[in-house]
Amino acid sequence: AQEGTSVELEDYVSQLSTADQCLALSRLDEAEETQVLEALKAEDAAELISHLPEVEAARMLGLLDTSTAAAIVQEMPSDEQADVLGDLSDAQAEAILDELPREEAAAVRELSSYDDDEAGGMMVREMLRFSDQMSVRDVIQDLSDHGEDYSDFDVRYAYVCDSDDRLVGVLPMQNLLFVKRAERLADLMIVNPISVQAKASLDDLVELFDAHNYLAVPVVDEEGKLQGIVHREAVDYEETRAIESDYLKSQGIVGGEELRTMPLWLRAKRRLSWLSINVFLNIGAAAVIAYFQDTLQAVIALAVFLPIISDMSGCSGNQAVAVSMRELSLGLVRPTEMLRVWWQEVSVGLINGAALGLLVAILAVLFNGNPYLGIVVGIALFTNTIIAVSIGGVVPLLLKRFGFDPAVASGPLLTTVTDMCGFFLVLGLATMMLSKLI
Amino acid sequence: AQEGTSVELEDYVSQLSTADQCLALSRLDEAEETQVLEALKAEDAAELISHLPEVEAARMLGLLDTSTAAAIVQEMPSDEQADVLGDLSDAQAEAILDELPREEAAAVRELSSYDDDEAGGMMVREMLRFSDQMSVRDVIQDLSDHGEDYSDFDVRYAYVCDSDDRLVGVLPMQNLLFVKRAERLADLMIVNPISVQAKASLDDLVELFDAHNYLAVPVVDEEGKLQGIVHREAVDYEETRAIESDYLKSQGIVGGEELRTMPLWLRAKRRLSWLSINVFLNIGAAAVIAYFQDTLQAVIALAVFLPIISDMSGCSGNQAVAVSMRELSLGLVRPTEMLRVWWQEVSVGLINGAALGLLVAILAVLFNGNPYLGIVVGIALFTNTIIAVSIGGVVPLLLKRFGFDPAVASGPLLTTVTDMCGFFLVLGLATMMLSKLI
Repeated sequence: AQEGTSVELEDYVSQLSTADQCLALSRLDEAEETQVLEALKAEDAAELISHLPEVEAARMLGLLDTSTAAAIVQEMPSDEQADVLGDLSDAQAEAILDELPREEAAAVRELSSYDDDEAGGMMVREMLRFSDQMSVRDVIQDLSDHGEDYSDFDVRYAYVCDSDDRLVGVLPMQNLLFVKRAERLADLMIVNPISVQAKASLDDLVELFDAHNYLAVPVVDEEGKLQGIVHREAVDYEETRAIESDYLKSQGIVGGEELRTMPLWLRAKRRLSWLSINVFLNIGAAAVIAYFQDTLQAVIALAVFLPIISDMSGCSGNQAVAVSMRELSLGLVRPTEMLRVWWQEVSVGLINGAALGLLVAILAVLFNGNPYLGIVVGIALFTNTIIAVSIGGVVPLLLKRFGFDPAVASGPLLTTVTDMCGFFLVLGLATMMLSKLI
Repeated sequence: AQEGTSVELEDYVSQLSTADQCLALSRLDEAEETQVLEALKAEDAAELISHLPEVEAARMLGLLDTSTAAAIVQEMPSDEQADVLGDLSDAQAEAILDELPREEAAAVRELSSYDDDEAGGMMVREMLRFSDQMSVRDVIQDLSDHGEDYSDFDVRYAYVCDSDDRLVGVLPMQNLLFVKRAERLADLMIVNPISVQAKASLDDLVELFDAHNYLAVPVVDEEGKLQGIVHREAVDYEETRAIESDYLKSQGIVGGEELRTMPLWLRAKRRLSWLSINVFLNIGAAAVIAYFQDTLQAVIALAVFLPIISDMSGCSGNQAVAVSMRELSLGLVRPTEMLRVWWQEVSVGLINGAALGLLVAILAVLFNGNPYLGIVVGIALFTNTIIAVSIGGVVPLLLKRFGFDPAVASGPLLTTVTDMCGFFLVLGLATMMLSKLI
C-alpha cells in the first residue's frame, strides 16, 4: 500500500466496488489492514466489514484498538454485531462491549446467547414499533421526526404493542395512505399476527417463509413481548450458509470455514484432523488386500483393476449421497424412508452396475486375453455398484435420523465400505477361480 | 389416496403445511397427482406447484389437460411462469400459452427468451408503475381502486416512467405520507435510479444487491424502457441454486438436478454418462500399475498401500478444491492468481504431507518389519500430498479462467492425476530400491 493521507485512502477505497474492496483488503498485511480500517469512517468500515466472511470480519476487528473496533461495531446491524463478536475471543468481545453504550451492549449480549441459526440469532432490533394507543397522526409525526434513524429499516410493516410491550398487531404501512389521521392503530392493525419464539430453528423459519409471502416475521419471548424481527433475507442467508457448509464438509473441510488468509498452522491442523481419521478408515480396505496377498501375487493383473473398482464404486456411491442430501434438504424424503430410497437406488444400481461391469470386463479381456479375468472384475464391479448406491442413498438418511451430520460422515463411511467390499469381491472371486486365472 | 369429493380433498390438503403438501404430492402416482391438482383451486394449485423443484412442477403440469394447466400457470408470478414452461416440451408449452390471455402469453414468451440466471429470466412484471405526470392524489386513487390486484406486489417502491415508457424515477411509497396530495410524482421521485439491462448476469445482480440495500432493482431495455423488476429474493434464490448445483456437479450429478421421482432410465442414463468418462480416466492410473507389474509382484506388500496412497491424496486434493471453489464464489481470489494459491497450498501440503507420510511409513514398518517399505510409501505419500493440494488448489482457477465449469471437471481431473502420480511414485521408488525390499 502506498503512503498517503487518510483522505486520499478513503477516496481511493470508496471508488472500488464492495467486492473489490474485500479482495483488496484481503491482500494487505495486518499493519496495512489496520491502517485502512482506521482511516475509513466507522460507518464505511462497518459496511465493508459486514461484506466479509464472519471469521475474517472478526479477525480484522481483533487487530484494531478497542475504541475503534467498538465504533465500527456500533454501526453494524444488531444481528451482525452478535455474530462477529461471537467469533472473537471472550476477552476481546468483552472489551468492545464495555465501550458500547450500556443499552446497546445489553442487547448484543442477549442476541449473542442465541445460535446463529436460531430466530434469536438472526433477529434485528431495527424496526418500526408503535403503541396501539397511538393515532395515525402520531405515527406520521414520529416517522418525520426519526426519518434519519429509520432510513436503514424495512418500513413496509410496523409492529404494534400494548402497554406491556406485548405484540398485538401488525400494520402494513401503505394502509396509512387511505385512512383518517385521527384513527388509532388498535383499530387499523391486523390482529393476532404470526410470530415466532426466539428459539425457533432455521428449518421452522424456512418453512414459515415458504408458506407465507412475508418479508419479515416478529420474534416474541414466552410472555409474548416483542423482541425483534427476522428478515426473510437473514433466513435466506443462513440457508445458503448451511448449504455451503454442507459442501465444504463433504469435501473434508470441517470445523469451520477455511480461507487462505487464515494462519497456516490452523489450516493445516484442521485439514489434518479429518485426514488422519481417513487413514485409519483406509486400513480396513488395506487389510482386505493383505488377507488376499497370495492370490494377488499369483494373478498380478488383478492389481491393475483394483483402483478402477474402488474409484468407480466410490463415484457411483457419491452420486447417490448427493441425491439423498438434496432430497433431504428439499424435504422430499424423510429420514425414516430408508427402504423406499434403497429400492430406488438398487434399480439404478442394477442398470449402471451392468453397464460398468460389462465395460470393465471387456477392458480386462483386452488387457490379458483371459476371459475369466473379465468375469471376475465384471461381476465384482456389478455387485459393488449396487452395494455402493445402496449405502450412498441410505447412509445420509440413517445419519440424519440418529442426529449425526450427514454432510461430514457420509463420504468417508461410503468410501471405507465400498473399498472393502470391492476388494473383497475381486480378490475373493479370484481366489475361488484361481485355477482358471493363472 | 382415499376416494373423496374434491371439497374433502381440498380441506385435507389445505390443513397441511406447504412442505408436507409437497412431500405428500411426490408420493402419489400420476393419476392421483392429476386428481389432486384438478380438485384444488387454480390459485392454491399454483401456490403448491411453485414450491416444488422446477422439473417436478413442469412434470406435473404436463400431466394435466391444457386448460387446467393454463389456469394454474396464470396464477403464478411471471418469472416462475417462464421457468416452468421452459422445462416443458415445446409443444406442451405452446399449447398452454395458447390458452393464456394474448398479452400474458406474449409477456411469458419474452421472459422465456432469457436464461434463468439473467436479469430478464428473474424479473417479474408485477410492480407499481406510474406516469411521472400523475399526482399523489391519482396514485392514492389508483392504489385503492386496484388494492386487490396489488396485494401480492412489493409496494415499498413505485417506478415512475415518462410518456415513452422510459424509467425516469423511483418513488419510496412511504414518502407519500408526508406530502401534499396535489404534488406531481416528477417532483417527488428519486431521479436517475439505478437499473440493469435484461441481459445482466447473476454475478452482476449479486454484486449490485451486495453493494446496495435494495429490495428490488428495475430492468430496462436498450432504450431505457421499463421491462420489470428483479427482487432481491429472486437473486438469492438463483444464487442458492447455483451453489447447490455446484455441489451436485462435484459429486457427479451432472446434466440437471436428479430427484428420485424422475423416470428410472433418465436417472440411470445421466449418472452413467458421467461414470463412463471416469472409467476412461481411470485407465491412466491402471496403466501405471500395469507398467510396474513386475515390481509389484516381487514386493506384494506394496499392493496393500496403493489404495491408502490413492485415497489420502484424493482427500487432500479435494480439500484444496473446496477451498478454491469457496474463495472463487466469495470473490476472494481471482482466476489469474494461480501462483499465489499454489504457494498457499504447498505450505499446507508440506506440513500435512510430512505428517501423513510419517504415519503411513510407521504403519508400513509395523506391517512387515522392513524399514525400506516405510521409506518408499512415506516419501511417496509426502510428495503426492504436495502434488494433490497443488492440483486441487489451482485446477478450479484454471478451469474457470478458460471458461470451463470448475464444479464438474475439478474432481475427476484431480483424481486421475493424483492416482497416476501416487502409483508412479510408490512403484517407481520401489523399483529403484528393489534389492532392499525383497
